[in-house]
Amino acid sequence: MFIVELSLRSPGCQFVSLVGCRVLRVCTADMFKNFGVRGLQCVLQRRLPASSVWPLSAGCGQTEGRDRKYSHASGDREKFEGSYHQNNAIRWLGVGTAAAVGAAVFWSWRSEVYAAEKAGPDDVRRDLPTFKNEELAKHKTKDKGIWVSYKHGVYDVTDFVKEHPGGNKILLAAGADIAPYWDLYGVHKEPNVVKMLEKYRIGNIETVFVTNKMDKDDPYKNDPKRNPLLVPASSKPFNAESPTPFLAEAFLTSNDLFFVRNHLPVPDLKTGEVEIGLDGSSKGKKFTLAELKKKFPKKSVVSVVQCAGNRRSDMLKIKEVKGLFWGAGAIGNAEWSGALLDDVLKASGIDLDKVQQKHLQFEGMDKGPDGSTYGASIPIEIAQSLKNEIIIAYEMNGMDIPRDHGYPLRVIIPGVVGARQVKWLRKITLSDNESGSHWQQRDYKGFNSSVDWHNVCFENAYAIQHLPVISAICEPTDDHDVEEDAEEINLRGYAWSGGGRGIIRVDVSVDGGKTWHEADLQPTNQPIYRTWAWTLWDVTIPLPETHGKRLDIVCKAVDISYNVQPDNVEGIWNLRGVLSNAWHRVSVNLHRSSSPPVTS
Amino acid sequence: MFIVELSLRSPGCQFVSLVGCRVLRVCTADMFKNFGVRGLQCVLQRRLPASSVWPLSAGCGQTEGRDRKYSHASGDREKFEGSYHQNNAIRWLGVGTAAAVGAAVFWSWRSEVYAAEKAGPDDVRRDLPTFKNEELAKHKTKDKGIWVSYKHGVYDVTDFVKEHPGGNKILLAAGADIAPYWDLYGVHKEPNVVKMLEKYRIGNIETVFVTNKMDKDDPYKNDPKRNPLLVPASSKPFNAESPTPFLAEAFLTSNDLFFVRNHLPVPDLKTGEVEIGLDGSSKGKKFTLAELKKKFPKKSVVSVVQCAGNRRSDMLKIKEVKGLFWGAGAIGNAEWSGALLDDVLKASGIDLDKVQQKHLQFEGMDKGPDGSTYGASIPIEIAQSLKNEIIIAYEMNGMDIPRDHGYPLRVIIPGVVGARQVKWLRKITLSDNESGSHWQQRDYKGFNSSVDWHNVCFENAYAIQHLPVISAICEPTDDHDVEEDAEEINLRGYAWSGGGRGIIRVDVSVDGGKTWHEADLQPTNQPIYRTWAWTLWDVTIPLPETHGKRLDIVCKAVDISYNVQPDNVEGIWNLRGVLSNAWHRVSVNLHRSSSPPVTS
Repeated sequence: MFIVELSLRSPGCQFVSLVGCRVLRVCTADMFKNFGVRGLQCVLQRRLPASSVWPLSAGCGQTEGRDRKYSHASGDREKFEGSYHQNNAIRWLGVGTAAAVGAAVFWSWRSEVYAAEKAGPDDVRRDLPTFKNEELAKHKTKDKGIWVSYKHGVYDVTDFVKEHPGGNKILLAAGADIAPYWDLYGVHKEPNVVKMLEKYRIGNIETVFVTNKMDKDDPYKNDPKRNPLLVPASSKPFNAESPTPFLAEAFLTSNDLFFVRNHLPVPDLKTGEVEIGLDGSSKGKKFTLAELKKKFPKKSVVSVVQCAGNRRSDMLKIKEVKGLFWGAGAIGNAEWSGALLDDVLKASGIDLDKVQQKHLQFEGMDKGPDGSTYGASIPIEIAQSLKNEIIIAYEMNGMDIPRDHGYPLRVIIPGVVGARQVKWLRKITLSDNESGSHWQQRDYKGFNSSVDWHNVCFENAYAIQHLPVISAICEPTDDHDVEEDAEEINLRGYAWSGGGRGIIRVDVSVDGGKTWHEADLQPTNQPIYRTWAWTLWDVTIPLPETHGKRLDIVCKAVDISYNVQPDNVEGIWNLRGVLSNAWHRVSVNLHRSSSPPVTS
Repeated sequence: MFIVELSLRSPGCQFVSLVGCRVLRVCTADMFKNFGVRGLQCVLQRRLPASSVWPLSAGCGQTEGRDRKYSHASGDREKFEGSYHQNNAIRWLGVGTAAAVGAAVFWSWRSEVYAAEKAGPDDVRRDLPTFKNEELAKHKTKDKGIWVSYKHGVYDVTDFVKEHPGGNKILLAAGADIAPYWDLYGVHKEPNVVKMLEKYRIGNIETVFVTNKMDKDDPYKNDPKRNPLLVPASSKPFNAESPTPFLAEAFLTSNDLFFVRNHLPVPDLKTGEVEIGLDGSSKGKKFTLAELKKKFPKKSVVSVVQCAGNRRSDMLKIKEVKGLFWGAGAIGNAEWSGALLDDVLKASGIDLDKVQQKHLQFEGMDKGPDGSTYGASIPIEIAQSLKNEIIIAYEMNGMDIPRDHGYPLRVIIPGVVGARQVKWLRKITLSDNESGSHWQQRDYKGFNSSVDWHNVCFENAYAIQHLPVISAICEPTDDHDVEEDAEEINLRGYAWSGGGRGIIRVDVSVDGGKTWHEADLQPTNQPIYRTWAWTLWDVTIPLPETHGKRLDIVCKAVDISYNVQPDNVEGIWNLRGVLSNAWHRVSVNLHRSSSPPVTS
């Protein structure tokens, strides 16, 4: 019995194992060339999705069909592994195999040509190779080809990018599934768009069946589903940032694209209530969600929630820090609605202006392994200055607050770091002390860049409350391509400052900070000294004549107190990587538009 | 008749004119050397103060004593000007002159030796040379000798600096009159201190009688006298900053050393009144100074007043700006007392919380040539947030406000730039508009560094109100000397932020910003979110082992909003040179303590 193993390890190639002997590619290529079987290469280079079983009957002498093995190839198409055993049987084997395979190939090729004409993203195109997600992910740039997947299809849209009515936005999906973007921009789902896309089809995406065996003891087993466009920073607890180009697109960040910062598993709550208490007193007054909605007027505020670690990745470039890898997307702006805290306190017999206690503590329902809950506090001066703004929110952008953002109740404290705007709120306590939680005492504090873990003293530092002025360039993103002969470049981003300090100016440079252009600021419709929302900005800047291969784009904002951002990360680096508000920098590649696009 | 003119133009040399002939120094030196008259050099090198007539009777043949002329020499001791007329009379003249002069010199020398033993700063020491102020000013460093003057005396205190009980503070007076410092530190006026000083006497200071003819039309003719320690920035209008080492010395800046920022001549007022008005209404309610004191409780606030141009000199190093040359001393911290504005408004029937107008305008009594007065305004949000802090002040540090600081009334608006805290206050108006004054509309606004006078648009920029976080190193001052083998260095300074944002950290570096040390902060005794006073800081830092000839000292502060200072001036440079709050840098010289001190 002779056994042949064709070992073609490349994307789009099936791994065909015929038990008994091994034939190298050089051998098979020579062999089949002699038989003129053009389709064989197709057959061999096609990889079947796991869900599809293709009845390859090509035998090899006494091959046994049941021993056929299909395995996913990986790596480079040119890579070929195997061994060559030369023996006298080869010639005999060649003749027999070729005859059988040739017949099968012809049959297959005919039906494939017919199928390809009718196929769409819902179909597996047997005439095309199949790619793994890892391979797809490598094709994000013009040099390597810009690929996207949609349903079963893989598409090389390198040539289409210029024609895309939505401009460079298509690049956001480069190397990934375009479906979440099409969900966002429904216009794409029209038949003519789908048909147009199919023209760029180059293959099938491997369908991976993940056995999602959830450990019944996994504390995260009840976490909600998330929008796949969120860029993950960690899975347990789940943390993910918004893709920045979407941030600059809308004044209000949509709920499902709002960055998620969880410290613990997401509580699975059907309803809720909040207790208003005084430190040392066992009796608190409780308000159910229904009561909050019924008893108090609904108050709304458009306000930013920002993680203290937003843009931490800039600090990581200098020196390691402890914390999640956040780009510039750990920030969002939403309209929050609920009961005014001051109203609820009054109904509890508390006059915020006259309280003696020094802090307002908040406790969540998200629990750690030891049963302790997330907690935070703000100084009473902040509570008093925000008497008309702090709300016990039950709505986010007009909808129930999503589970990831604190369903059913979350305290919203405009101008203050996200860490104090406690989600899954269950208790508010007036106290002489700050919250004793880890996150208030030993996290979310700033230090100078010469303080490291061996000499840090958390006790001596102030807990972060109001955040300093920050800005970011959302479009273009880092490392994206710009036509070298373009005359100007459009840039968009956000700017914000804590404590209600409105943004009065955003300066943008495309020459690394030598010359500055003042961006147009979108109005917030909030008073300049009580600006809780962010300021979106945009600017069009002529490209400098003598620019090189890359363009160094910088932005910096100024708030109404004329606070500015520090120039460099070095001076503000800190061991926790918080407060990363140096000038924001992205670098884009300049490409000659005349140079031929590189496709895969 | 022969006339001799001895022309010795050098510091400490009198200019002796004997009508009829001229003798060069080469001639006189040779002549008198032959006579062995050692004292002659003293006589000739002594310059008499104008108030003192020294009866030099040395004739020159038929010289006429009444024609003697004493003129102040100038320039370098080695400089000598004149002309040499050789004629036959010289030899005869030499004999006669030498005899007469010799006798006079001997008499003079004897009495001088006696006088020197008894002399003090009140005496002119005839045995010593006389120096001009310009020469004195050149001797500020160890290399050139550290000289000071006191009354009639000039002293070389280079060797004394190390022994000075007050440390390096003596260096503040280097090259200048020490009297204002001794006025400040009265202990120096004890006889034993004066006697000790006299040991270092090297000469007399030239007494200059300035004919201070005041133009009767000079609008500044009634300006008050100022403390000579103030460092002038302009004379008309008078502007001067505080010497920074004094700033770091006291939490409250003394009235006479508080920086002066005048835009116009100082009004000469005996008393005052303030009018509270509504825009568009001709009727205002007036309160005299006496009424303000009597009708309203006296309210005090310790608050910084800072010029928007403080530390402008840092910007000038980059590129020219329009504005006074301010170092880091255009800031001061004082206790201001007066009537609470809110009380006065209430007495005028105005409830600050409910006013519809958007601005609070202030008008001073200082007038320009066109009769228009200084004016400024603040947005109503600031007025409301400072309801318990804005005062119509009539006292500064427990005394009537000095004329330079607004006598009799000045509005104090804590946390806001000095330009809005109008001096010589006469009117407060609630208005829908900002003040229309030049200083509100076309000054005291910030721009980016690519905006210059050809493209500036003042209308589009916000008037500066709250100021951003700032800090400065007050001691050591730039270019001062530090012993190279000292093991550590002591540094002191101030930090402050606008809007009541207290300082939570000051980082100091002696290696140009590579490593940072956290300074000790003096308590302000004000709440951290309502800190109107500055924070003085000090720190002792070990000198780096591998330091070079200069030490680059840097400081930067962080406020409670975690706002930080920008790293460099380049990114914040603006055409008016305001808001100059980059990291503060001073550079000091390192000297080997073993190297011999250089004396003059």
